[in-house]
Amino acid sequence: MLIQRLAIIGIGLIGGSLARALKRAGACAEVVGCGRNTRNLQQAIDLGVIDCYETNPASAVKNADMVVVAVPLGTMAKTFATIHDALSPQAIITDVGSAKATVVSDAQQYLGQHFSRFVPAHPIAGTEKSGVAASFAELFEKHRVILTPLPETESQAVDIVSTMWQKTGAEVVKMSVENHDEVLAATSHLPHLLAYNLVDTLAKMDNQTEIFKFAAGGFRDFSRIASSDPQMWHDICFANKDAILSVLEYFNIHLTQLTKAIQQGDSQHIKNIFTHAKTVRDKVCG
Amino acid sequence: MLIQRLAIIGIGLIGGSLARALKRAGACAEVVGCGRNTRNLQQAIDLGVIDCYETNPASAVKNADMVVVAVPLGTMAKTFATIHDALSPQAIITDVGSAKATVVSDAQQYLGQHFSRFVPAHPIAGTEKSGVAASFAELFEKHRVILTPLPETESQAVDIVSTMWQKTGAEVVKMSVENHDEVLAATSHLPHLLAYNLVDTLAKMDNQTEIFKFAAGGFRDFSRIASSDPQMWHDICFANKDAILSVLEYFNIHLTQLTKAIQQGDSQHIKNIFTHAKTVRDKVCG
Repeated sequence: MLIQRLAIIGIGLIGGSLARALKRAGACAEVVGCGRNTRNLQQAIDLGVIDCYETNPASAVKNADMVVVAVPLGTMAKTFATIHDALSPQAIITDVGSAKATVVSDAQQYLGQHFSRFVPAHPIAGTEKSGVAASFAELFEKHRVILTPLPETESQAVDIVSTMWQKTGAEVVKMSVENHDEVLAATSHLPHLLAYNLVDTLAKMDNQTEIFKFAAGGFRDFSRIASSDPQMWHDICFANKDAILSVLEYFNIHLTQLTKAIQQGDSQHIKNIFTHAKTVRDKVCG
Repeated sequence: MLIQRLAIIGIGLIGGSLARALKRAGACAEVVGCGRNTRNLQQAIDLGVIDCYETNPASAVKNADMVVVAVPLGTMAKTFATIHDALSPQAIITDVGSAKATVVSDAQQYLGQHFSRFVPAHPIAGTEKSGVAASFAELFEKHRVILTPLPETESQAVDIVSTMWQKTGAEVVKMSVENHDEVLAATSHLPHLLAYNLVDTLAKMDNQTEIFKFAAGGFRDFSRIASSDPQMWHDICFANKDAILSVLEYFNIHLTQLTKAIQQGDSQHIKNIFTHAKTVRDKVCG
């Protein structure tokens, strides 16, 4: 058995799906869930996602050989501080945060002697839905999980976290913390900001009722990610601030150029942008 | 039989799907397709989408009681000028253009005495795919078709075009040309520009290979519309320039505010925007 006692702090879409996938794979003997909301935790038990629960993270991690911290980025530091004294000396700790620099910094500050067994991780999977009711065992299949271990991270801990994710059907890759945060700012954080900003902008227009009445499939697809958890994305804006601001600036330079091209009727520029984007998108997404 | 001889100028996704839907409904006796590419037209015959074809629009519209102009916005004027002399005195003419002011202006200028039988129309349906091979009879089912008739448009012509679209399973609504162009700029044209600009921007970044490697489902949905036909969207930028620039400016004001909030760590502003957007999106798209 890969994991004897798995403690998952935060039983939402990601934490719940991980528990389901590892149970399905027979990779863990027992799953302890931890959260603040007992109704949600009881639902997780009823759904067979976890075996038991605790509302105090320190109680949840007792005797756990694997601890997955699946809380919003803004509460990582507090969670690490809370579990520090209760962690087993051999426990492996990992997370699922969408930005890695702040999580690593929080872990360094609050996990103390356990920091060398902390493996920063980010599964590139999710839906616009939240909560354990939306969780499913197949969520990570054929998706990538990025690990961003540091020079001081114990290689055995990295190997076990890798194996854990492979058991869910995911492909594990490694990259630096900085590289992760830059890449994710571009492919995930920026699109979310644009989608949130678009829906908010349209909803503030005078004729918004009519606008949304005539929103077609393109709008539906484009704006799907604006249904994501506001708290989670709020936290990401703080945790990955620099990389997000940098890619936002880059996006804006290009949008200003495109706007000017439309103003001036620069046919060639407009056609070049659209054709280039279509070619790339068709290649990337098949 | 609602239509005896239906001439469709431009047998792509929209023109092809309309032909399929009307044939399925038994609403037209004969469909004449018209285009420049004979291979595409022969494919349309092989697929059973059209019954015969012409490469000259003037030949295609001869004896047609219904003429649907489904060409890019940039070639509307030329098409109207070409068919003018060959149109039957009772022929009803309509279009499927994504912007209406320029089409109406082109029709007014080039259709002459036929203009009172021209019914401007826009089916709010489509996919990111193009071409007759992508067409299907169900495309318009439960979608809206907007008609923007003018005071001088014959009401009988409006009724017949309405009935034609209803036969495809669509819901027909009417609004003013100006209102249509404003609403579509917000819900359709702006999202397309943002998606094209995002993919183009990311593709120009130094680490673009890695960026696209880690693009997840959110990116895929968000960028789907960037796979749309570049020529069509190029033409829309010209045809609906003013409304597009106006909504782009409005979007930018909000994006600048959001960017500032991220810079300054204005937690409340960020949370308000995201929560508002999620609430609206969940309500609009279910």
